[in-house]
Amino acid sequence: METGPHFRTVALVGRPNTPGIEVPLLALADQLSTCCAQVVFENDTARDIGEHRYPSVSADEIGRHADVAVVLGGDGTLLGIGRQLAPYGTPLIGINHGRLGFITDISLDEMAHVVPEMLAGHYEREERTLLEGRIVRDGRTIYEALAFNDVVVNRSGVSGMADLRLSVDGRFMYRQRSDGLIVATPTGSTAYALAAQGPILQPELAGMVLVPIAPHALSNRPIVVHDTAVVEIRFVGGRDVNVNFDMQSFTALEIDDTIVVVRSRHRVPLLHPKGWSYFATLRKKLHWNEYPSEEDE
Amino acid sequence: METGPHFRTVALVGRPNTPGIEVPLLALADQLSTCCAQVVFENDTARDIGEHRYPSVSADEIGRHADVAVVLGGDGTLLGIGRQLAPYGTPLIGINHGRLGFITDISLDEMAHVVPEMLAGHYEREERTLLEGRIVRDGRTIYEALAFNDVVVNRSGVSGMADLRLSVDGRFMYRQRSDGLIVATPTGSTAYALAAQGPILQPELAGMVLVPIAPHALSNRPIVVHDTAVVEIRFVGGRDVNVNFDMQSFTALEIDDTIVVVRSRHRVPLLHPKGWSYFATLRKKLHWNEYPSEEDE
Amino acid sequence: METGPHFRTVALVGRPNTPGIEVPLLALADQLSTCCAQVVFENDTARDIGEHRYPSVSADEIGRHADVAVVLGGDGTLLGIGRQLAPYGTPLIGINHGRLGFITDISLDEMAHVVPEMLAGHYEREERTLLEGRIVRDGRTIYEALAFNDVVVNRSGVSGMADLRLSVDGRFMYRQRSDGLIVATPTGSTAYALAAQGPILQPELAGMVLVPIAPHALSNRPIVVHDTAVVEIRFVGGRDVNVNFDMQSFTALEIDDTIVVVRSRHRVPLLHPKGWSYFATLRKKLHWNEYPSEEDE
Amino acid sequence: METGPHFRTVALVGRPNTPGIEVPLLALADQLSTCCAQVVFENDTARDIGEHRYPSVSADEIGRHADVAVVLGGDGTLLGIGRQLAPYGTPLIGINHGRLGFITDISLDEMAHVVPEMLAGHYEREERTLLEGRIVRDGRTIYEALAFNDVVVNRSGVSGMADLRLSVDGRFMYRQRSDGLIVATPTGSTAYALAAQGPILQPELAGMVLVPIAPHALSNRPIVVHDTAVVEIRFVGGRDVNVNFDMQSFTALEIDDTIVVVRSRHRVPLLHPKGWSYFATLRKKLHWNEYPSEEDE
Repeated sequence: METGPHFRTVALVGRPNTPGIEVPLLALADQLSTCCAQVVFENDTARDIGEHRYPSVSADEIGRHADVAVVLGGDGTLLGIGRQLAPYGTPLIGINHGRLGFITDISLDEMAHVVPEMLAGHYEREERTLLEGRIVRDGRTIYEALAFNDVVVNRSGVSGMADLRLSVDGRFMYRQRSDGLIVATPTGSTAYALAAQGPILQPELAGMVLVPIAPHALSNRPIVVHDTAVVEIRFVGGRDVNVNFDMQSFTALEIDDTIVVVRSRHRVPLLHPKGWSYFATLRKKLHWNEYPSEEDE
Repeated sequence: METGPHFRTVALVGRPNTPGIEVPLLALADQLSTCCAQVVFENDTARDIGEHRYPSVSADEIGRHADVAVVLGGDGTLLGIGRQLAPYGTPLIGINHGRLGFITDISLDEMAHVVPEMLAGHYEREERTLLEGRIVRDGRTIYEALAFNDVVVNRSGVSGMADLRLSVDGRFMYRQRSDGLIVATPTGSTAYALAAQGPILQPELAGMVLVPIAPHALSNRPIVVHDTAVVEIRFVGGRDVNVNFDMQSFTALEIDDTIVVVRSRHRVPLLHPKGWSYFATLRKKLHWNEYPSEEDE
Repeated sequence: METGPHFRTVALVGRPNTPGIEVPLLALADQLSTCCAQVVFENDTARDIGEHRYPSVSADEIGRHADVAVVLGGDGTLLGIGRQLAPYGTPLIGINHGRLGFITDISLDEMAHVVPEMLAGHYEREERTLLEGRIVRDGRTIYEALAFNDVVVNRSGVSGMADLRLSVDGRFMYRQRSDGLIVATPTGSTAYALAAQGPILQPELAGMVLVPIAPHALSNRPIVVHDTAVVEIRFVGGRDVNVNFDMQSFTALEIDDTIVVVRSRHRVPLLHPKGWSYFATLRKKLHWNEYPSEEDE
Repeated sequence: METGPHFRTVALVGRPNTPGIEVPLLALADQLSTCCAQVVFENDTARDIGEHRYPSVSADEIGRHADVAVVLGGDGTLLGIGRQLAPYGTPLIGINHGRLGFITDISLDEMAHVVPEMLAGHYEREERTLLEGRIVRDGRTIYEALAFNDVVVNRSGVSGMADLRLSVDGRFMYRQRSDGLIVATPTGSTAYALAAQGPILQPELAGMVLVPIAPHALSNRPIVVHDTAVVEIRFVGGRDVNVNFDMQSFTALEIDDTIVVVRSRHRVPLLHPKGWSYFATLRKKLHWNEYPSEEDE
């Protein structure tokens, strides 16, 4: 087995404020720098764990110079760095610190064995889409951001329902009163959207899903649209309604604000160990082989 | 047909801030005072519509002296006055101003014909249960209120999931992470709880329903408990989480606050025209005879 | 600890056609006959495992003479003998052979320790309601049976939708087109009804739930009615539609057949080990403490 | 406005066994033959209404020679002829006789005005995908057919759950116990799949949706896969389980039969009046602008 020439520089990223995470992070750094590649640490991670032996660089520098980023944390950690690296197309390897994630699917136990193999070129590669959302007020974009999971409009807990007017590709879809609306990527379809009764979208699907949250009209069902659609959500009634991107960067909406959501032109490459299967991860996370009851006779 | 002697005093209550509502309110007052009973107006209603010919009295005075209250507005108007009159057991007649309500089920068109008949003793009577909720902090009750529809714990739109620990009759049920939890009466089962995927409870059912809102665990299904149950919801994790009673009187929760919900000892009598059927109202409100598609062949 | 005088005769019932079940059954028989009580075997169980040392008796004789029946199998085994013993009020103890059941909640491992304690009077007792269903054709009852879980109307896989007309207490509820309808007890609410999106009913709730199966109208939601209700389901359109009781005793319906479902006057007492909690069983069966994903910050 | 040269021959197809349908069919035939095109009748339709003045031809002949088929009936009528014409790519215009359909979206009232305009070239064209399913037994294909809506595996009403093993693109997905499974096109997503809690798929989406029917495991949620996927459903347990294509052509399954479903290479072009909007049809069919309740303040 030989190191693939394309993975010369590996960036390590860890979940912030996680006591004990320095142990596996440094073990991995030491192992990889010995066997396989040059190792750098992401700035915040280095500061967080007080690491000084390896170069520490910004996310942008990772994007420009690293060949792959290995993320140690939970799905949220990977979403965060994923949004930052998206413009650079840096591939990501996700290792879960704690419980299995939907996208951080390598365990700490497997790490020492699996990551070197992957750096040597033995991996499965897939690409995940992101959303690009912007908030338009009085004709001007007042905010824009990427979302790996979802763009979510949510009423607060101290107000009545949000009244939203949706259109897709310039065509009016419906006006809904609800707790809010989720626009999710396939990656996000197993996160908040799933809790709100949305379907699972296979990552390869060129689609995004609109999931109403506790909609007043019982027939306001989740709708899957193609991923070249332009989704527009106009806030037409309600108080204390916010929009967020991956549960980050919240913006309070004003009446007649419009959130425009499209697929980002960036994609995030995810690397998995050989033999990886998306469905296997789903089976584990969703207990698909365990039945709530078992009839006999 | 003769006037029942028990409906000598009728109180009129209208939806606040509703332009034009004085017309049907005064027409009804004039009709009823001529044919059937002594008419009084609820204070706020009288002030709202600038009415001075009839006595105007407080909700408490209505409770003590009126034999029935006729409410003209929507379900929310009836819920509001219903909570105030609950301790007095004053029966309510609900007339919808606008669209048909689940509990304001008499239309403006029928009003002139139907209300006098009801005051003459031709009605169906049913009783609705209420909930009594209190918030306990550091061992002391810091707030308590009645709810006609529901007691709702709701995260805000700018925070992560709420982490709640539930017990019923002192027995631990589960810990759930979600957008919140609804404890609803049968009356409330067709309101917010229905939007959050709860079942409909027949008003006569001696039960209340716990409906999680967008729960993280897919098996956190609605649970119907008997209505003598003591439901305790402890707020164990999250930020910006509130509790409300019928979407009124919001209280911000602190970690380890417990909301205790029981059935109120008060019940609200509702009067309906002869031949009234709960299911007929459901059919109309939920379009039960209209099918989304019709297969042929 | 002394044997309670009321548990002098214990009947053992095992799941039919279950290789290896004779081992725990006989071990239990030998233990109980030594320590605690007179042991008899249910006829079919005795024949099934070829047991001749203990008296073997019919279900009716168990009902008349035994003080308690210990059932070893799955939930289905307990449902079956429960229906037969219901008229006698014989209490049941359920031991699961295989995986944990909703009502067979004692494991094989605990059996030797727990059952003698229960026979000595250390148990929690609760009562489960049953349904009584009858099929009326041309004014005559052509079939009637008890159901512990549910009475189910189901179309076959080779026909169009079933068209059903429901009424409750003589009042028309709705006409629905669907794959069928489930009328479930609280016990049945965690069986088929749960799969069809019904709510969970606490066993103490005096209610039953009507759950439409894949209803054509999206607003045809589950409805919980009080358990003194008379539910009538009239088969008004469709082909190859059947009714069953606990997935047993299937009857093919003809147009205009009516299925009348009421709560049975019989109840089935279930005995559980001290400290038993219904919610604890739900937590285990429904994985209530395991979350499909875990977000980090 | 001038007649588009490409619509020289128009085939008329009507819903079978529909008393009175000859009136609008013949009116349309007479109008179109006068103004716009040569008219032929589909064989069965001609025989059904006893029409002899126009040529009557088989579906295959329509496919080979007609430029467009106008279907008068319900969605089922259009599905049926659509499957037959799919190999020829003949575009379809759907007129509903009775209530509005999801795909037969022109009303009888509009017909006389709208169809000539469409034949003159003023229309919106979209293409719908179909599925191609085949049943493999002992390594041999024993049946294959097209489905416009869905391929459905369904247990009968007199058997226990179906046990199915799914794989997608050769990768094992899960084994599920349920009443069955629906594989639906976007067109089928608003039919049976919607009743079974599936999401709506926009027709343009290159996807198909797998919807379990009353699945035993609560986390067996609908999954949307890309439409180049090879879906394999193996029947591994149960009795009396059938597969059907658009609720037609039922086949009884034997253990270890596998149903293989892929997108058909054929697509069905649908023509709509200018200004047509898919969402407008959804709004009407699903009552999207009518709310089950209306809260007031």
